[in-house]
Amino acid sequence: MSQAHRLRTCRVRVGHRIIGHGAPVLVQSMTTTPTANVRATLAQIRSLALAGCELIRVAVPDKPALAALPRIIQGSPLPVIADIHFDHTLALDAITAGVAKVRINPGNMGRDRSLVVARAAASAGKAVRIGVNAGSLPERDHKKAKTPEALGKLMARTALSYARAFEKTGLQEIVLSVKASNIRTTIAAYRGLSEKSLWPLHLGVTEAGDELSGAIKTAAGLSPLLLDGIGDTLRVSLTANPVREIKVADLLLSAAGVRRRGIEIISCPTCGRTTFDLARMVKQVKQVLAKEAKPLTVAIMGCVVNGPGEARHADVGLAGAPDGSFMLFAQGRLLRRVPITGAVAALKAEVEKMVK
Amino acid sequence: MSQAHRLRTCRVRVGHRIIGHGAPVLVQSMTTTPTANVRATLAQIRSLALAGCELIRVAVPDKPALAALPRIIQGSPLPVIADIHFDHTLALDAITAGVAKVRINPGNMGRDRSLVVARAAASAGKAVRIGVNAGSLPERDHKKAKTPEALGKLMARTALSYARAFEKTGLQEIVLSVKASNIRTTIAAYRGLSEKSLWPLHLGVTEAGDELSGAIKTAAGLSPLLLDGIGDTLRVSLTANPVREIKVADLLLSAAGVRRRGIEIISCPTCGRTTFDLARMVKQVKQVLAKEAKPLTVAIMGCVVNGPGEARHADVGLAGAPDGSFMLFAQGRLLRRVPITGAVAALKAEVEKMVK
Repeated sequence: MSQAHRLRTCRVRVGHRIIGHGAPVLVQSMTTTPTANVRATLAQIRSLALAGCELIRVAVPDKPALAALPRIIQGSPLPVIADIHFDHTLALDAITAGVAKVRINPGNMGRDRSLVVARAAASAGKAVRIGVNAGSLPERDHKKAKTPEALGKLMARTALSYARAFEKTGLQEIVLSVKASNIRTTIAAYRGLSEKSLWPLHLGVTEAGDELSGAIKTAAGLSPLLLDGIGDTLRVSLTANPVREIKVADLLLSAAGVRRRGIEIISCPTCGRTTFDLARMVKQVKQVLAKEAKPLTVAIMGCVVNGPGEARHADVGLAGAPDGSFMLFAQGRLLRRVPITGAVAALKAEVEKMVK
Repeated sequence: MSQAHRLRTCRVRVGHRIIGHGAPVLVQSMTTTPTANVRATLAQIRSLALAGCELIRVAVPDKPALAALPRIIQGSPLPVIADIHFDHTLALDAITAGVAKVRINPGNMGRDRSLVVARAAASAGKAVRIGVNAGSLPERDHKKAKTPEALGKLMARTALSYARAFEKTGLQEIVLSVKASNIRTTIAAYRGLSEKSLWPLHLGVTEAGDELSGAIKTAAGLSPLLLDGIGDTLRVSLTANPVREIKVADLLLSAAGVRRRGIEIISCPTCGRTTFDLARMVKQVKQVLAKEAKPLTVAIMGCVVNGPGEARHADVGLAGAPDGSFMLFAQGRLLRRVPITGAVAALKAEVEKMVK
């Protein structure tokens, strides 16, 4: 599949990673462990990195968290971003401690104190994310905005005004985010930023909910942006183990045709025409291909109505035949019929052949 | 929240339901039981209806399935749609058997035989869905289309050409669908139909995958359409129990601001600032409010950074305070602080007060 076009933004360096300017859309997450607990936080960062997370954010709400930063930075395989609210001295100290980026919200820190942080980041060569959040906008803004979209536009204007002020301090490494839990607000806010600036954008929907509802809300909110080429990094927020956020991010990026990581399985919902347990077969295929890093599309189809068509367009595919056997496809060609007992193994062998 | 605008389409009657012309976007599903097994099929239809499904489709691949139709129609609380491929005589017999609508794909049935079905449906006062599917387009169309979007436009043109021919037989009750497993193809196809016709549209992404990947792919594919006011009915295709399709459809419609059914829970992903088990609290709240039919937004937030802001904009909300207690909000006002042990019960009491 051809990849979706991306809008060109400025380049921002975060540790050994690049955000924006045509770099792959980076997947990030945030630890849920108490940051002061170095061992637990590093363990979570490592499992996130293993799952494919590329940047990690940790909350720094107080001095004990701040004190833990040097050891977390040293032990982390991922660039560390400090998430700081209210107290700008924590942000200054986090920069001194060596984080790759700080995330602040001038709305709760105060504009002037935020500018002090911007100046310190510029001197230290660090990046700053300005994270404006619908939940932290002043009540008068919520009253002024009559529709979700109007609130989004207001958020974009707020973020741009901060960013222009930050830029005047000499800071160039600026990333912007304008998250809301309403997806219409979120979309209008990011579109507003994308139309008016070249700063790279960190996408997200806040307070999205538990795994399934959060995944749906995030996909519904970010897909219209990703499909229009908007977004340089993203975080999926789930009330769940953060490792699940990476899985959801990968599935979303893959669905939007923006970035493919790992195997994409296409399978039909089955119906009265299906003569075998397709959900079970999908599970087996996922298991045998779990370690496969190369992005491939694998189709597993219940019957001959759409099966051969879809299977033919996947890299590898199986489609159930009426006699209980399967048709095995690879790269557009029907290879042969295989019995149900050997279908998963035959598919795995084709994938391995293809990866070599 | 203000509801999203909807594009006005023609009105199509399917049993006691209306598709299009400003009617609510109807949620439908398809049975996975063998249609010939009347008892199993009716049991599945009843559990789908209980979950909120509003129209049900059953596969009719052969004579035994056809023979079961009268008893399924009689026992079903939902209008029954027959899904028929290849053999147009099955479609004619399904219309005689009394289904509310047939779904056919002229691409595998043949154009002329499809027109015979259209004429029979028109005489019987029944609806027809013309379901063009990327997987069943001829190979020359796939070769001609150089991008996913081009394939979508080709699908739209194909569906429109069938629909115009169907209309000439005297059939007015036409619904169109143009599903693909690639979301860029799907979006381009539906946009093409929406720009050029007023027939109501049945939205869907085919072969979306298992529950999580299917939910993400469907949300990513349909949200851009729903947000633009496109779509009159939808089916979420999952390789899972079809009852889960209804849940995913509800979450998507609610996220897109199109139709709200039941409680929407807004919760944050938690971070190093959260001092309690928020995922557990979300689960408890879902349990105590599971039977609540009125659409309400309930926020459960880990801390005071975005908590009070989000909780204030929900109908009812809890936000964790640094001392371990919770702030309880209802309709924009802070009501009082509650201890963690009484937080879920206090929230439930507020919801009940509100529903009365």
